Amino acid sequence: MSTFQHASRRVLLSEEGPREGFQSEPVGISTQSKVELIEALAETGLAEIACCSFVNLTQVPQVADAEQVVARLRRKAGVRYTGLWLNERGFARALACGVDLKPTLVTSASETFGLRNNKRDRQELLQGQRELATAYRRAGLNRAAGYVFTAFGCNYEGEISAAQVERSVQDVVQLAAEADMQLESMYLCDTIGAASPTRVRKILDRVREAHPTLEIALHLHDTRGLGLANALVGLQMGVRRFDASIGGLGGCPFAGNRAAAGNVSTEDLAYLCEEEGFDTGLDIDQLLRCAMLAEKIVGRPLPGKLKNAGAFRGALPPQSAI
Amino acid sequence: MSTFQHASRRVLLSEEGPREGFQSEPVGISTQSKVELIEALAETGLAEIACCSFVNLTQVPQVADAEQVVARLRRKAGVRYTGLWLNERGFARALACGVDLKPTLVTSASETFGLRNNKRDRQELLQGQRELATAYRRAGLNRAAGYVFTAFGCNYEGEISAAQVERSVQDVVQLAAEADMQLESMYLCDTIGAASPTRVRKILDRVREAHPTLEIALHLHDTRGLGLANALVGLQMGVRRFDASIGGLGGCPFAGNRAAAGNVSTEDLAYLCEEEGFDTGLDIDQLLRCAMLAEKIVGRPLPGKLKNAGAFRGALPPQSAI
Repeated sequence: MSTFQHASRRVLLSEEGPREGFQSEPVGISTQSKVELIEALAETGLAEIACCSFVNLTQVPQVADAEQVVARLRRKAGVRYTGLWLNERGFARALACGVDLKPTLVTSASETFGLRNNKRDRQELLQGQRELATAYRRAGLNRAAGYVFTAFGCNYEGEISAAQVERSVQDVVQLAAEADMQLESMYLCDTIGAASPTRVRKILDRVREAHPTLEIALHLHDTRGLGLANALVGLQMGVRRFDASIGGLGGCPFAGNRAAAGNVSTEDLAYLCEEEGFDTGLDIDQLLRCAMLAEKIVGRPLPGKLKNAGAFRGALPPQSAI
Repeated sequence: MSTFQHASRRVLLSEEGPREGFQSEPVGISTQSKVELIEALAETGLAEIACCSFVNLTQVPQVADAEQVVARLRRKAGVRYTGLWLNERGFARALACGVDLKPTLVTSASETFGLRNNKRDRQELLQGQRELATAYRRAGLNRAAGYVFTAFGCNYEGEISAAQVERSVQDVVQLAAEADMQLESMYLCDTIGAASPTRVRKILDRVREAHPTLEIALHLHDTRGLGLANALVGLQMGVRRFDASIGGLGGCPFAGNRAAAGNVSTEDLAYLCEEEGFDTGLDIDQLLRCAMLAEKIVGRPLPGKLKNAGAFRGALPPQSAI
């Protein structure tokens, strides 16, 4: 096992709820509600909030109001309000509407997942990203975040070997180098919630060994209850950057697929980090208020736990802790 | 930190759902439903199922049918069907109805919690347990399990020091020695869900150092989402015995107290153990069926996660995994 230990006690959580969370809801969420939640999240200390997706509207009709969300937001200084795109057309929309740009270079460790999800094989996916990188450079952007989907397992291929993940990371590193872009961090994504502590350890060790100076981040889903145990292993191994979604928003269990689940909940993950002696810079009580607001917006209980009990602070009955 | 590492890969989970879970439900659960769930749980490979409580019926009316539950059960060989009592009167009921006896010696690390919950201070609690131990010996029982409540924190006292927990463990060890009873294991209970990975590590280290030959077990509640992360630390530190409740039954959030939560879910914990290379002897698919049956009985979604997705087994869409 690698002995890498990141010295910093600072942990950065990026909020995915308004984007990845709302787009899985069975009913439309009003633009006003999205804006309200994003503005509340900006008061928690979060440095980055994914607000919307610039993707195919026929496939994901929930995100048709991406531009309106961005236009209506009252932005707070120091917060990055980002959006997601998957191709040049989406990137052009993002550029046009003035959302904060977070250029990404993505691939899938499972080729079958890439084929089923994007109808493209590995080389076609890489070619698409190459064209995106060219568009980034044309727009004057020279930094990107890498994402490797299905890094811990795939519904179609099953277990993903550490070698497959390393190859995917190498593909993205190579793409960035070709485009002369700096890779800020490399997100390993547990797209279908297949990760376990041992799998996280194994994959991180392998990627670290091959790319010792690359910052690894984790994008975890709490599909099988192991989300925070996986995050704990990440923390122990020096990971200091995580995606999360407020309340655990995402993968609505009433949308016909009980098997999907949202990201690990932002407030529960922040609590874990703080309890373990890390500094998230986040106001946990304000996160809990946001989680309750998110519940109100979707009209059902969300899976995050901490909002029910409040942080353990000792000599208070838990009901009054928030 | 202690370097203790338990060599065995066998992990024992004791089922608490039918007892601790159902007694927190706002509406009455029929005796038939309780029996049905217990009988289904007996098919999972569980060696021990807590079926009922012999406690004060005016305080916990849900458990009035304890004797009927025991009488109606078709018992499976090799399974221990246990019940809980808190005093000699309860123990006499357990003896009379023929439930499998699991004698316990308990105390509370937080004296205030003991006072509020049982109206007894430390010495009074110990005296009560001393009388119980005498009753155990009269009944020919010479083995007991120890329980220390609020071992990781208390709503009234706040953080519980490792020294307080060690003193409580010592009290129970002393009680057992006085009564010439063998202490099978010592359950450290996170009664209010205050544990965190670091707190678990600290308390286990201290108790281990003072009692290196005593088997430590964990009774964890998933009140703040850290249940499985805490269990992972326990596993890493050699804990091989846990209480758990099917589906995460317990501490119903609709019973007027959103702050209470059930034990860690049996099926999620079993999955964690198996994924980490331990052997629980449990049939995960049958556990998932039990969790779904428990949901049907209480008429609301339970917090356990795995039942929604099924175990990750690779090349299957998750919907068909169970």
